[in-house]
Amino acid sequence: MSVWQLCPNIHGVTAIRGCNQTEPKAVSEPPPASRSRPRVSPQLNRWSRARSIRSGRKLDRPVPRTQTLESSPATPPPPSHAFSPPLDPDYADAIDGDAESTASKTIYIVSDGTGWTAEHCVNAALGQFDYCLVDHGCPVNTHLFSGIDDAEKLLEIIRQAAKEGALLVYTLADPSMASSANQACKLWGVPSTDVLGPITDAIASHLGVSPSGLPRGALGRSFRLSDDYFRRIEAVEFTIKQDDGASPGNLDKADIVLTGVSRTGKTPLSIYLAQKGYKVANVPLVMGVQIPSTLFQVDQKKVFGLTINPVVLQSIRRARAKTMGLTPESRTNYFDMDYVRGELEFAGRLFAQNPSWPVIDVTEKAIEETAAVVLRLYHDKKHKCTMPRISKRY
Amino acid sequence: MSVWQLCPNIHGVTAIRGCNQTEPKAVSEPPPASRSRPRVSPQLNRWSRARSIRSGRKLDRPVPRTQTLESSPATPPPPSHAFSPPLDPDYADAIDGDAESTASKTIYIVSDGTGWTAEHCVNAALGQFDYCLVDHGCPVNTHLFSGIDDAEKLLEIIRQAAKEGALLVYTLADPSMASSANQACKLWGVPSTDVLGPITDAIASHLGVSPSGLPRGALGRSFRLSDDYFRRIEAVEFTIKQDDGASPGNLDKADIVLTGVSRTGKTPLSIYLAQKGYKVANVPLVMGVQIPSTLFQVDQKKVFGLTINPVVLQSIRRARAKTMGLTPESRTNYFDMDYVRGELEFAGRLFAQNPSWPVIDVTEKAIEETAAVVLRLYHDKKHKCTMPRISKRY
Repeated sequence: MSVWQLCPNIHGVTAIRGCNQTEPKAVSEPPPASRSRPRVSPQLNRWSRARSIRSGRKLDRPVPRTQTLESSPATPPPPSHAFSPPLDPDYADAIDGDAESTASKTIYIVSDGTGWTAEHCVNAALGQFDYCLVDHGCPVNTHLFSGIDDAEKLLEIIRQAAKEGALLVYTLADPSMASSANQACKLWGVPSTDVLGPITDAIASHLGVSPSGLPRGALGRSFRLSDDYFRRIEAVEFTIKQDDGASPGNLDKADIVLTGVSRTGKTPLSIYLAQKGYKVANVPLVMGVQIPSTLFQVDQKKVFGLTINPVVLQSIRRARAKTMGLTPESRTNYFDMDYVRGELEFAGRLFAQNPSWPVIDVTEKAIEETAAVVLRLYHDKKHKCTMPRISKRY
Repeated sequence: MSVWQLCPNIHGVTAIRGCNQTEPKAVSEPPPASRSRPRVSPQLNRWSRARSIRSGRKLDRPVPRTQTLESSPATPPPPSHAFSPPLDPDYADAIDGDAESTASKTIYIVSDGTGWTAEHCVNAALGQFDYCLVDHGCPVNTHLFSGIDDAEKLLEIIRQAAKEGALLVYTLADPSMASSANQACKLWGVPSTDVLGPITDAIASHLGVSPSGLPRGALGRSFRLSDDYFRRIEAVEFTIKQDDGASPGNLDKADIVLTGVSRTGKTPLSIYLAQKGYKVANVPLVMGVQIPSTLFQVDQKKVFGLTINPVVLQSIRRARAKTMGLTPESRTNYFDMDYVRGELEFAGRLFAQNPSWPVIDVTEKAIEETAAVVLRLYHDKKHKCTMPRISKRY
C-alpha cells in the first residue's frame, strides 16, 4: 500500500506522472484510457463476449460506455442540486495530448461514507489484473475520497477525474448525491460504476422496504453499541493479549487456536479473524521449546495447524530478519535452510500425532484466503452442514 | 455477528425460523430440482442440471424479477437509492397482518474465492436497512459460501436459495461459473446480484486488458509476497506490541499515535489502521498517571486525540467492567459518572494544551468511521491536498 505522493495540482500530476490528459472535447468522448489502449484485443473480445452472454446483454447492440458501466438508471431523475458547471477553460491548458499506452491509469473512489467498501471492491477487482499491474508496466493509481457529503465537492472530484481520464467508482447512499454523480459522469464522459446501488436495490426489493439513503455516520443513522460491537472489540483485545503464546492458560477461552512455526502468519491471521469477532489464540512451535500442555487439553476441534513450503518460509524469514536488524551472527539458523526444514519437520510430526487438527498450507495464500479456509472448517466442524457456510443474523 | 445455528435442512429451517418457507407460494418459484426429485436421484439430477447449464443450453423463460435485480450493464437496476419497491406478491401474502410479518429474509453469499468482498458489500448495503433489521421485526439471515469452485456445488446452493426464497449475492471470477449462476438464477427465479462483475468490466475497459478470470487463491493466480504484504504484517505486529502504552520509547517509529482515556476505542482503531498498513501506537490517558514525555517529543502531526460523550463512555465502561468481572468493590470509580467526567476533562485539558492534535469525538462512530476521519486528516496534513485523499499505487 505505497502512499502516492501526488496532490491534485494538475500540472504536478501531468509533470510527474507523464500520463496523457483528455483534450477538452475528448472529455465528453471516451477518455484517453480507451484511446491509448489497443483497439480491442481478441482476448478482451472473447472475455467481454462471455460477460455479455452471462449478463444477458444483447451482443449486437453496443451500449455507450458510460451507460454500459454505469449501474444506475439510463435516464436518472434530474439532480436535486441543479448545479452542473461546465469544464473550466484553464483545465484545457493543463492538458497535453501525448499518449503513452503504459501510462498509469487512475481510479477515483468516492464515498459519502467511509469509502472502505468501495476501496475493498476496487482492491478485489484489481486482483483480476494482477498480471498486468505495476510490475508488468500497467500501473494503476487509486485515490480514495471519503466523507464527500456535498454536491460541490463531488462535482469538483468528478471534474478532476475527467481531466485525468480516470475511472470513477462510487458508493453514495444519498440518492440526490448518487444522481448528481451519475449525471456529471455522463456530462463529462467519465466512466463510472456505482458499487452498492445494485445490491442495495436488490436487498430493498427482497425485504420489501426502502433503503434509508443515509451514509454511514450520517446524523439520523444512529450507530448502535450492539452486542456485535462489543464482541468484536473483546475478540480483538483477547487476541492481542494471547498473541505469540502469551498466557497459554487461556487457550480454553479462545474460539480458535492456531499453531505453527515462526512466520507462518499466525499473528496477522489471528488479528484478521479477531476483527471478524473470533477470539483467537496462537501457539508458536519452536524446535526444542516445550509446547504448552493446554494445547492438547482444549477442545481439539478448535485447533488448527499452519504449515508452509520451506523455501518460501526461508525467504520470508530472511526478510523478517532484515526488518528485525538481525546480523549473520545473531541467530543465523533462523533462516538457515537446514534449520527451517528441521523446524517444519518438527511441526509436521506434531501435526501427525494430532490428526484431528486440520493442517493448512499457507504457501502462496494471502491472510484472508487462509482465514476463509479456517472459518470454513471451523463452521463445518461446528454445524456439520452439507456445505460449509458461515451464517449470521442481522 | 451471532452465528446462526441452522443447517440447510429446509424443514429444520422452517421449524426453527418459524417462517412460511414450506408453502410453495412463499418460494419465489418451486425449483424444477425439487419437483423432479421423486423420479431422479438428487445426485444424478445435479449432474444433468450442471451439464445442461455448463453447456449453455437454451433455458426457458427469463424471470423479470431476476433481470431487474441482476446488475448487468444491459439491464440497469431500478433507480439507485431513490427507490421504494412494490412488495412482491409472495411477500405481500406473507405480511398479511399475521406473525409472518416477522419472518426472516435470507441472503445467500456465494464466491469462488474467499467471499469477503461480497460479505463486506452485503454488510454495507444492510447498513441502509438498519432501521428495520432484527430489532425492528425484519431480521435478515446471511449464509456465506466461500471457495465454491465447481458448478455442481454452485447449483446445489442456488437450488437451496430458490427453496428458501433467498436473494443470491455472488462474486465469481470464473466467467463460466458466473454465467452458470446467472442462468440458474434466471431458471429458478432466484433474484441475484453480481457484486464485482460491473466494476471488473469497468476496470477492464479502463485498462484495456482482460481480467484473469481466476478466483483468489486459484492455481495460476500467484500470490506475491509483495512489499505491501510485509508492510501490513509489520504494521500489525508493531501495533500489537505498542498497544495500551507499551514501550512509549517507540512512539517515534509509529505512523500514527492515538491518545485518549480508557474505552475510547484506541485498541480496535489501532488494529483497524494497522491492517491498512499503518504502524499505530496508542497512549492511554489515566487521571493521575504520568503521561510519557515522548508523546510530546514525537512529530506532533501524527498525534490524534480521541474523546467521547461521558454518558456513552459510562455505559461502555459498565459493559466492559461486566466482561472483566469487576465487582462494585473493585475500582468502582471506573464507571462512576464523576470519575468518567473528571477523566474526560483531564484529557480535554491536555488536548487544549496541544492544539495541533486533532481531537475526534468517537461517540456514535463505528471503528471504521473513526478510522476514515483519522486517515483523511493524516493524509491531508501530509500532502496538503485541496481535497483530503488516500492515494495508492498498484
